[in-house]
Amino acid sequence: MDDGFPRSRAVALDAEDPMAGFRDHFLTQGEPGFIYLDGNSLGRLPAAVPAFLDQVVRDGWGRGLVRSWETWIGWSRSLGDRLAAHLLGAHQGEVVLSDSTSVNLYKLAAAALDAAPPERRTIVIDGEDFPTNRYIMQGLAEQRGLRLVTLRSDIDQGLYPRVLRAALNQDVALVVLSLVSYRCGALLDMAAVNQAVGDAGAFMLWDLCHAAGAVPIELHATGAQLAVGCTYKYLNGGPGSPAFLYVRKDLQPRLRQPIWGWFGQRGQFLMGPSYEPVDEVDRFLVGTPPVLSLAAVAPALDVIERAGISRLRQKAIRLGGVVVELADRWLSPYGFRLASPRDPTRRGSHVSFEHPEAWRICQALSAEAGVVCDFRVPDRLRIAPVPLYTSFTEVWDAMDRLRDIMASRGYQRQSAALARVT
Amino acid sequence: MDDGFPRSRAVALDAEDPMAGFRDHFLTQGEPGFIYLDGNSLGRLPAAVPAFLDQVVRDGWGRGLVRSWETWIGWSRSLGDRLAAHLLGAHQGEVVLSDSTSVNLYKLAAAALDAAPPERRTIVIDGEDFPTNRYIMQGLAEQRGLRLVTLRSDIDQGLYPRVLRAALNQDVALVVLSLVSYRCGALLDMAAVNQAVGDAGAFMLWDLCHAAGAVPIELHATGAQLAVGCTYKYLNGGPGSPAFLYVRKDLQPRLRQPIWGWFGQRGQFLMGPSYEPVDEVDRFLVGTPPVLSLAAVAPALDVIERAGISRLRQKAIRLGGVVVELADRWLSPYGFRLASPRDPTRRGSHVSFEHPEAWRICQALSAEAGVVCDFRVPDRLRIAPVPLYTSFTEVWDAMDRLRDIMASRGYQRQSAALARVT
Repeated sequence: MDDGFPRSRAVALDAEDPMAGFRDHFLTQGEPGFIYLDGNSLGRLPAAVPAFLDQVVRDGWGRGLVRSWETWIGWSRSLGDRLAAHLLGAHQGEVVLSDSTSVNLYKLAAAALDAAPPERRTIVIDGEDFPTNRYIMQGLAEQRGLRLVTLRSDIDQGLYPRVLRAALNQDVALVVLSLVSYRCGALLDMAAVNQAVGDAGAFMLWDLCHAAGAVPIELHATGAQLAVGCTYKYLNGGPGSPAFLYVRKDLQPRLRQPIWGWFGQRGQFLMGPSYEPVDEVDRFLVGTPPVLSLAAVAPALDVIERAGISRLRQKAIRLGGVVVELADRWLSPYGFRLASPRDPTRRGSHVSFEHPEAWRICQALSAEAGVVCDFRVPDRLRIAPVPLYTSFTEVWDAMDRLRDIMASRGYQRQSAALARVT
Repeated sequence: MDDGFPRSRAVALDAEDPMAGFRDHFLTQGEPGFIYLDGNSLGRLPAAVPAFLDQVVRDGWGRGLVRSWETWIGWSRSLGDRLAAHLLGAHQGEVVLSDSTSVNLYKLAAAALDAAPPERRTIVIDGEDFPTNRYIMQGLAEQRGLRLVTLRSDIDQGLYPRVLRAALNQDVALVVLSLVSYRCGALLDMAAVNQAVGDAGAFMLWDLCHAAGAVPIELHATGAQLAVGCTYKYLNGGPGSPAFLYVRKDLQPRLRQPIWGWFGQRGQFLMGPSYEPVDEVDRFLVGTPPVLSLAAVAPALDVIERAGISRLRQKAIRLGGVVVELADRWLSPYGFRLASPRDPTRRGSHVSFEHPEAWRICQALSAEAGVVCDFRVPDRLRIAPVPLYTSFTEVWDAMDRLRDIMASRGYQRQSAALARVT
């Protein structure tokens, strides 16, 4: 059954894919038939990581011991500078790796709220944004007695700019949005949003978790002020690898975050009596970074920098196009609805589908078909081909197996009870 | 030159040391003549870590990919439960690993201040406490318009209880102290402090960084309410391994921390619209933990649990006794002053000396004598023998080399300029 899109066409796309060789930079051996389409949750293991980590452990920690901090202490900044230069369109000294995305959201949002005119009493968020973003802002709003305006836009229908503009007024202190939606994959127009929020006199804080390493980002060129993001999705930094934060250079001396830790202190090892943060982006650091988790980010960035974000984006658009085309051909009859923008230039790297049985279908794909993608409550199936390591043939095979599961109703053998981790 | 304490006596102490074999649980090969006395800054590498970490990387991340979160997500809590049972005298469900010590201090202090009666407007800290503790509390005091009272006690002279009691009154909301001082190693009386602070109606928040794994801790038996600490000193969890936090069971539902991240959310993966923290200690979690850094803590705890804290403490007291005895014999003539309590039961595992040339002496020890200990501004040399892996002979040799450096004035060849990392 190929219905006009035979497997041979996917095989041919791989044969002429200039990025196909990058798969060799990841450890994918010993997985006959296994297809991974969840790199937007946890990126694959770069092949260079185990040896590098072993070296950091044995030589750095084991032999160098405390003396190795002379090296390690620079990593938060040097990795940030690499992200800035290659993936974020930011300047040197504007990005550091630190803490988790949630903690960074808190730090930058609090810093912005402290710097905003006190008469501005509103934070604007998106009701469909990732839970931690909503929760962190709910906390800040409650703690400070601010109003929280939750946008209820059907983001994937392109209504966003209008909905956002309607919410902007003289009372807004801060807007927090994801560049790429974790649910539907919609890619916002960063320049347009920055412009709109800037015109309204509010701070704009971007969540780049599903965007960094997936789409070209131009923080500076688009006038972005603040951003955070994780390094374990498309950046392949490993489970829970430290997040990054970006603060535009001119804002750094003005903004002060609430957690006054010694890694942000001027003359950290002079250990002076009073907290006086450095002028630079390091003032947004707090405590001792998790060095082993930080270490894995370096070889991961080597791969992505060599590939180059624009080539990755080109392939991602084509991979996503195959997902959508095959879904149109094969899955529409089974009640799948595309829940992402159809225009690939308005989408990140993952494609989202709505189906009332999404949970059981996702389980069946993993248990019976060797395909790992993911589910988001209540009814979304997210499929994320990653241009660094996903082939067109894998996408074809995964969609074919999904079609089989729908045709055979194989998903009905799965439990409807939600597992704790999905 | 042995002056009544010949090297053979140290060798004999090692020969009869029941803990001597534990050194084999650490990677110490390939270090002829090297002596490490800085385990209170970064603990040594447990021998089981490289293989375990490689397994987590290759099998967990590489092959299991996102599915491994079913395992990883429990680690913050299960490692916390191990700490609670074996080292902290706490109950199951009272300790989790999360974030850095600085972030945890912020979370718990903020939670306590929110729960304290609003008329209490003072935070009490120690002026000699670790910088990040002071800075974090300075920030909270400024942000909330609270008064910060800084104790200026000569903690190593045993004046502490009096000084603390004098500072306690109806205005105090929170007291933050280290159980073992990072500078002088003084060990406070946890029960007495808890009693005094409790009598005054304030919250008591302990920093256990230099205490956990070094001295027996009985959080419950002493009535401790709140505590934080790191896992990379005496717990040997690796550089920047995640910190722990303790909240006594009965306080958990009452206390609410300010960073409302999704790891503290009830039904985390249901991703409900509003933040509603779980009732348990997990409500103090925030974002995705750094799994690789978390992983190394498990084999590190295996070693320390096998050794047992009371046997470790016995040996630590004897090791510290040798340091003090040799310093009395050999270093007093060169102007060294013991800056730690002389009574070993009132000290943690490290011994601190005051000397105007401490910085250059510390540098010379490392560069010319292969002895790594550490320096703290402006004039402290900290020597930390660690019972799990430091021998009596190493202590003797290190003190002997230190004596040589003083006798030859070898330290005068070192630069007086402070390096960034010390």
